[in-house]
Amino acid sequence: MVGGGQLARMTHEAGIPLGIRFRLLSDTPQDSAAQVVSDVTVGDYGDLDTLRAFAAGCDVLTFDHEHVPIEHLRALEADGVVVRPGPDALAHAQDKVLMRARLARIGAPAPRHRVVSDPADVLRFAEEGDGLPVVLKTARGGYDGKGVWVVRSTEDAEDAFRAGVPVLAEEKVDFVRELAANVVRSPHGQAVAYPVVESVQVNGVCDTVIAPAPGLSEELSARAQQLALTIARELGVVGHLAVELFEVRDADGSPQILVNELAMRPHNSGHWTMDGAATSQFANHLRAVLDLPLGDPRPRAPWTVMANVLGGDYPDMYPAYLHCMARDPGLKIHMYGKDVKPGRKVGHVNTYGADLADVRERARHAADYLRGTIDE
Amino acid sequence: MVGGGQLARMTHEAGIPLGIRFRLLSDTPQDSAAQVVSDVTVGDYGDLDTLRAFAAGCDVLTFDHEHVPIEHLRALEADGVVVRPGPDALAHAQDKVLMRARLARIGAPAPRHRVVSDPADVLRFAEEGDGLPVVLKTARGGYDGKGVWVVRSTEDAEDAFRAGVPVLAEEKVDFVRELAANVVRSPHGQAVAYPVVESVQVNGVCDTVIAPAPGLSEELSARAQQLALTIARELGVVGHLAVELFEVRDADGSPQILVNELAMRPHNSGHWTMDGAATSQFANHLRAVLDLPLGDPRPRAPWTVMANVLGGDYPDMYPAYLHCMARDPGLKIHMYGKDVKPGRKVGHVNTYGADLADVRERARHAADYLRGTIDE
Repeated sequence: MVGGGQLARMTHEAGIPLGIRFRLLSDTPQDSAAQVVSDVTVGDYGDLDTLRAFAAGCDVLTFDHEHVPIEHLRALEADGVVVRPGPDALAHAQDKVLMRARLARIGAPAPRHRVVSDPADVLRFAEEGDGLPVVLKTARGGYDGKGVWVVRSTEDAEDAFRAGVPVLAEEKVDFVRELAANVVRSPHGQAVAYPVVESVQVNGVCDTVIAPAPGLSEELSARAQQLALTIARELGVVGHLAVELFEVRDADGSPQILVNELAMRPHNSGHWTMDGAATSQFANHLRAVLDLPLGDPRPRAPWTVMANVLGGDYPDMYPAYLHCMARDPGLKIHMYGKDVKPGRKVGHVNTYGADLADVRERARHAADYLRGTIDE
Repeated sequence: MVGGGQLARMTHEAGIPLGIRFRLLSDTPQDSAAQVVSDVTVGDYGDLDTLRAFAAGCDVLTFDHEHVPIEHLRALEADGVVVRPGPDALAHAQDKVLMRARLARIGAPAPRHRVVSDPADVLRFAEEGDGLPVVLKTARGGYDGKGVWVVRSTEDAEDAFRAGVPVLAEEKVDFVRELAANVVRSPHGQAVAYPVVESVQVNGVCDTVIAPAPGLSEELSARAQQLALTIARELGVVGHLAVELFEVRDADGSPQILVNELAMRPHNSGHWTMDGAATSQFANHLRAVLDLPLGDPRPRAPWTVMANVLGGDYPDMYPAYLHCMARDPGLKIHMYGKDVKPGRKVGHVNTYGADLADVRERARHAADYLRGTIDE
């Protein structure tokens, strides 16, 4: 796996029972996954020679992020390396312009969008619809709110053009809530769909995930799962695919879904599966990229809630850790081994049970207490 | 953790979400746990200097087996190393004579037993009770049926005395079945008890574990849990304690329990907890030895069945692996990264659900198929 972040850390954890040998390419020996994996290469994923040396002897190459240059992946494939997901699929997760164009061709519902050339063109895009605000996204390089701007004036629009990459304008969707449809697909086309979840974002960062999404109709849930399975098949995704969705109301008040983003790797909206599903997203991602039969994606409890633990003002979380474990013996804590910095994702907690309000409160309390924003 | 076997491998897996740094002392770099842990020292646990160098900088030392000489552990404690479980407790898991004497003092029910000096004394021991057969056990060094003899004649008795260590004679218990009561205790005395399980042994090796033990009365279950908690407290155990029990019928036909063996580490009879309990034995062992509050030991499903995967005649399990995963997407496979040798424990499978017959059949099928004793 290329990339030493928490997704690789949790993928290694899921790989241990599968009996596989896990090799990691990490930026530093201190990265989250590098702390727990035995076979670590420290190197730059942007360097083709490093990638080539790393991939030699691997049965399959997969990723904890989407930043490896596509041309390098094509070169590795030409060498005979098995790359999953492959560059043809990954290109759509790297480039939002490409993604929007491809999804439009397969009829996936999307916010109104087009490529814009300069701030004046942003205003024209706005006037073609309901006016400002609109959302600008750089085609490449964005994640967790980075590379995304909500534009309320011409001046706001200038930042997006500074990077010199194509800029996509999208209508600012007046959504009811955000959902995610997570599916896993294997090379021979087997696929599983997890229950559709509600994802609550705060300041552009995933805060809480509720599985399944409360009050979602069976019809809309099935439509979201079908959409994600179709995207996985049409784009040739192998491994875990997260389809981030907006739930909106159409003119007559009926709920509809629009595709917001794609991620072709284990995803924050799937962390609940570690304790809440029969097979976690990490285990199924590995099973998919290794072309093993996929595991049961069904939930193990009526409700599972995931809350991200963000760093707060206290670098030492240990006392809070003790308190949370003692207060709630059923709390499932997942720490990433990262130094605490304000706002940084340093872990997550999962809770599950039959009473959603209780399950949600327990997750919320633990995440807030670990961050230090509450003290009781 | 001292010892690189599958218990250490699964303990590391459980330690990743806890965010701890796990250091391993392994006999070889190929040992089951050494394959997956980042911080591995290869060395001899029987050598005090090796242990000292390994323990330097560790917050706490714990074990995947009970073979580290007690005098070394006392020397480490004198150096200031935190050893959990400590030598005073571990001595009872290493020495069956000591264990029987100590359990007798705390009133734990046991098979009739005494130390015997030679084959003639074995016959006297037999005649003091119901005659032959009787069971002989070397005080130290036995596991998985090794160091244990069922004696049906004077000649049978000779083997046990060859090692030159004290020999314990025990009545051959006419048991209904074997049970295990697993508990975890922390240094400040918090303790949790897992549901009592039925353990099915084949040729002296654990074959299947059913959680909870079918048909066990609440009264006997609570008595077994209380007994294990009492043993843990009285012996000062820190970490996971497995109390292997015989279920017998007394003269008037009432079910009773007798203590067979103790293990002070994660134990085969607790592997079901990885998929069947809110907190696994491995996570709770780590929480205990690190003096973190313990996790919920309650089951997540009405029934969980664990079946050990033993090596068969086919060194390459991969095709069988594919078949089992495809046949049963809910099957939880745990492989240890070991070379397949006939009869060797190379992994285990867990299944869970509401229908015991079905859950048991699924586990049994997978274990038999992986071993190669069935082909459909």
